[in-house]
Amino acid sequence: MCVIGTGLIGGSLMRAAEKAGRTVWGTAASERTAAEATADGFDVTVDTAAALRRAADVDALVVLAVPLPALAGVLKQVAEHAPTCRLTDAVSVKVAVADLVAEHAPRARFVGGHPMAGTAESGWAAGNGELFADAAWVVAADDGADPEVWTDVAELAWACGARVVPAASDEHDLAVARISHLPHLFAAVLAAVGAEGDELALALAAGSFADGTRVAGTRPELVLAMCEGNRDALLGAVDSALGRLGAMRGALASTGGLAKTVEAGYEARQRWAAARNPELLRVRRGTPMARLREIGRRGAMITGWAE
Amino acid sequence: MCVIGTGLIGGSLMRAAEKAGRTVWGTAASERTAAEATADGFDVTVDTAAALRRAADVDALVVLAVPLPALAGVLKQVAEHAPTCRLTDAVSVKVAVADLVAEHAPRARFVGGHPMAGTAESGWAAGNGELFADAAWVVAADDGADPEVWTDVAELAWACGARVVPAASDEHDLAVARISHLPHLFAAVLAAVGAEGDELALALAAGSFADGTRVAGTRPELVLAMCEGNRDALLGAVDSALGRLGAMRGALASTGGLAKTVEAGYEARQRWAAARNPELLRVRRGTPMARLREIGRRGAMITGWAE
Repeated sequence: MCVIGTGLIGGSLMRAAEKAGRTVWGTAASERTAAEATADGFDVTVDTAAALRRAADVDALVVLAVPLPALAGVLKQVAEHAPTCRLTDAVSVKVAVADLVAEHAPRARFVGGHPMAGTAESGWAAGNGELFADAAWVVAADDGADPEVWTDVAELAWACGARVVPAASDEHDLAVARISHLPHLFAAVLAAVGAEGDELALALAAGSFADGTRVAGTRPELVLAMCEGNRDALLGAVDSALGRLGAMRGALASTGGLAKTVEAGYEARQRWAAARNPELLRVRRGTPMARLREIGRRGAMITGWAE
Repeated sequence: MCVIGTGLIGGSLMRAAEKAGRTVWGTAASERTAAEATADGFDVTVDTAAALRRAADVDALVVLAVPLPALAGVLKQVAEHAPTCRLTDAVSVKVAVADLVAEHAPRARFVGGHPMAGTAESGWAAGNGELFADAAWVVAADDGADPEVWTDVAELAWACGARVVPAASDEHDLAVARISHLPHLFAAVLAAVGAEGDELALALAAGSFADGTRVAGTRPELVLAMCEGNRDALLGAVDSALGRLGAMRGALASTGGLAKTVEAGYEARQRWAAARNPELLRVRRGTPMARLREIGRRGAMITGWAE
């Protein structure tokens, strides 16, 4: 297995896959990171062309674990050195990645992926082989997906201890707009409003403000890459939020009542808490993509093959 | 010292004050809670009239630690049984409380207070004497405040291990609208948007969504009491947030760029992090209220008397 990009996700993936007994090699963006990974006993260089040729030679799965802005450049190398390879990715949007693959490496056998794991840290040193334990790992179940590569990606997720959530690329993007990208924008706006005026408010800010703004501390370029790469889905989520906030503002100004907003939020949070204990199931090899998508839509997760 | 209300805040206050060597008695809303507190060795009954008469007899400080909706009823009892007592409170809004005191117990020597501590728990059993350690405790520094009662409240805060933040009642309300009430409403809206549609989004929701919606799990009646009790200040905070979200929506739809929003949020979160290490100082007894307010506005906190 060939991993392009050895940051938090790529680096954790290499550790988890090697621990699961796989042969893993990869490439880093800098000599320094390659040396760090090599010192930790991993087969990492900066020669992406060579790594991709090796993948082509043995028909290995190639995992793209670079930020979205770097993807087009890497895909051009894929088209040159491993044009028909088995290909997946670990980027946080799926439609934009599929579009880039179609444009730059159209012959690659691509099935998108998104392991839903992360920490505030980044870089090779922050990686760990347990990062994906019990995490959700979306495997794109679009019509026409190559079932063999779908199997490769699902088995990689399981080998890393994750649970597979099948979803169409556009369904994935709508979901993450609501539960990841909008929360980042809300955190940014909340932080900015808290910092208006003098220092009194920030001095008093604790519990609810600390939690609500935590992800505003994420490196801006990471937030911009994922949010701007999911523009259409994100606009829908922002409009839904603006509609709810506008209705709340109207109620507060007229009757002063906030019960509808607060009770809807409380109920939604209870539903989220219940979803922490998802239905886990196994499926038969070759289950059609449409059937797989239904599993994802009902919030269930796949832990292995039924046989 | 007489504490009316033995929930999380009142119960923690009794424990902290008794540990600091003070004579403390209080009243609970139910026989059951009174029995619980008595079993823990505290002087707690349900007879508010008797507790207030005792406070009047020895000119003790009375602390109101009941939710805002229960306050008018308690203040009527204060007016009857301890009309000129030294009085403070631990409610999360200050203008509304001052208005209620002026209406129902106008002769009480009132100085508002707000210990900024709390957990997700509530009730006597959840209380603990360390709750206020290193916490900010706002002591209302309005012009005309009785300096003797101001001293009582500040010394109570210090006895409980807290740091005093002086602020005018209306300045306090504007600050908490931004850093506590708005975060609760944002959490509610974020949770509701996440729960729209099928179960896929909630199944994938983790880190940023879990943090951003945490306080949406607070009991709705508590959130409603504090937010609806701070309507005017909250409207300003909501409008500021709507302005920022609207501008962001426009930028996302036109250029697709979110840098301004994300970078402002990042910078604000850094400022908040820096404010975790506030300037700590001592002041002379009798420092004028206007001077005290300046200390609060620059984010500093008072830990004791200068003498």
